[in-house]
Amino acid sequence: MNFDPQSLRYDSNGLIPVIAQDHLSQEVLMMAWMNAESVAQTLATGKVTYWSRSRQAFWVKGETSGHVQRMVELRVDCDRDCLLALVDQVGPACHTNRRSCFYTAVRDGEEVEIMAPMAD
Amino acid sequence: MNFDPQSLRYDSNGLIPVIAQDHLSQEVLMMAWMNAESVAQTLATGKVTYWSRSRQAFWVKGETSGHVQRMVELRVDCDRDCLLALVDQVGPACHTNRRSCFYTAVRDGEEVEIMAPMAD
Repeated sequence: MNFDPQSLRYDSNGLIPVIAQDHLSQEVLMMAWMNAESVAQTLATGKVTYWSRSRQAFWVKGETSGHVQRMVELRVDCDRDCLLALVDQVGPACHTNRRSCFYTAVRDGEEVEIMAPMAD
Repeated sequence: MNFDPQSLRYDSNGLIPVIAQDHLSQEVLMMAWMNAESVAQTLATGKVTYWSRSRQAFWVKGETSGHVQRMVELRVDCDRDCLLALVDQVGPACHTNRRSCFYTAVRDGEEVEIMAPMAD
């Protein structure tokens, strides 16, 4: 079946959550949002392109930082309301310069930082 | 720092997206939602407990199916608006009886099923 971005289930803002996972290490890097047009752009260009809710604009990941995400494979969940993007991530995915945004663990009721920022 | 579920950033419905990842294989299993109370319950019980948007009720994963998720470690993202749950998943995570909900890949513009339902 042909994949049509319009066939996904978007929320009331026209957005769908996207989980970015390193295609080799399988580390979960970040979660962000796309609209139908950014899904289409991502597939057309191979550059993961989110929709920035704060800026209300397309967000070609890494366009300014150089920390681009090349799309390796897009996956759709059973309810068609969440996407998993297997990506090739250059450098840190997180704006804090860490490889992943999920660098805080909850251990014995305490928040523990488990990942340092990457060296430049 | 003590972890307080109230310190997370919930959406206008009081919900936060939660990515469930197999703590051993690192496979991404599913994405669902929690409210502050279900985050607290999950940590208190060790049983991953979502908030069902369709039923508007707590959803102790696997309570009826037996396909429980034991919480291994909870992680918080940089913006505190998404959670990553490293889990020990019994059987399939997906209601279609597949290990993961992300069993559909987009390859060359086509939807391809890449995962079969698990045997009972």
